[in-house]
Amino acid sequence: MDITEFVENSIGRWRSQRSAHHLAFGHFEAVQSEIDIVSLSLDDPAVIDLCQTYEVNPEAAVSPFRMSWEGQSDWEESEAIKGSCVLVPVPDPNHANRGRLLRDQGYAETIAAVGDYYLTEDRTFVLTTAYDRAAAEEKIWFVNPNVRCRVSLIKTSAGTGVVTASFSSEIRQDVKA
Amino acid sequence: MDITEFVENSIGRWRSQRSAHHLAFGHFEAVQSEIDIVSLSLDDPAVIDLCQTYEVNPEAAVSPFRMSWEGQSDWEESEAIKGSCVLVPVPDPNHANRGRLLRDQGYAETIAAVGDYYLTEDRTFVLTTAYDRAAAEEKIWFVNPNVRCRVSLIKTSAGTGVVTASFSSEIRQDVKA
Repeated sequence: MDITEFVENSIGRWRSQRSAHHLAFGHFEAVQSEIDIVSLSLDDPAVIDLCQTYEVNPEAAVSPFRMSWEGQSDWEESEAIKGSCVLVPVPDPNHANRGRLLRDQGYAETIAAVGDYYLTEDRTFVLTTAYDRAAAEEKIWFVNPNVRCRVSLIKTSAGTGVVTASFSSEIRQDVKA
Repeated sequence: MDITEFVENSIGRWRSQRSAHHLAFGHFEAVQSEIDIVSLSLDDPAVIDLCQTYEVNPEAAVSPFRMSWEGQSDWEESEAIKGSCVLVPVPDPNHANRGRLLRDQGYAETIAAVGDYYLTEDRTFVLTTAYDRAAAEEKIWFVNPNVRCRVSLIKTSAGTGVVTASFSSEIRQDVKA
């Protein structure tokens, strides 16, 4: 599986159940949300802008997409969780299953970020992103075309301590025949 | 990584936070538990018995262990979740990273079961177990020596529908220096 196939499989509307484990406190948080993933064209101004921010030649990018989410946490019930970001994969020219992922803002931190991804032999997408004071590691895989799992870990920047581990099960709402 | 190293890394006492997503209902369940994993000797009567049940030569087994757990769910608060089982890996003589895992009773179903495991290149243990009316798929990996993640999926026996997806984050209590 390469990044193009992975993004293609992800396009659509998903209903997500997410559980976050705040490890130091043994606290559980439950989030329900809708996630929309739509593909963008390579000449979309948002894609060109993001490439320029990271001094990447837009011709090196493939399968850009926009992800939007809207949900509700049981922890901060007053606050709707809502956001959107543009993501641009830039494959490594020497390794079909590796590359960088540009993002105009994160959900872990609301700043632009660039992560390193690879796809494992068992079709898991693995993304690591280094922030100033933290590092994020995300694994995403498809159980079938209509069910996606995602595990996200937020670590201290030294990389040894895990602060939050969260798990999402995502069910496709625009079910493929 | 082979199964011997994986079991070795797992031995110890763990504090587990588990979230189960019951997908049809969008229901969240939270379970807190303590898990003890202790190694058994190859001539332990429980190991010999389990090998005989599955007509496996005990000399083909490696790194048998006992797993015990005791916890509390927020769903059925009255009931303590408590159990124990013996697990016996039987590596495939032709593939160092594959084999069968014998178990004297499961936590998905309280009956004996035999599953097929393999270890991926990125050090994830993947176990699939077929039951009469369901199939279970489990992935376990270490984030560091003191943090383990585990994703379990219960599917219909046809294998297409996912009924429950659960995620455990496990923190070592007998921390290694």
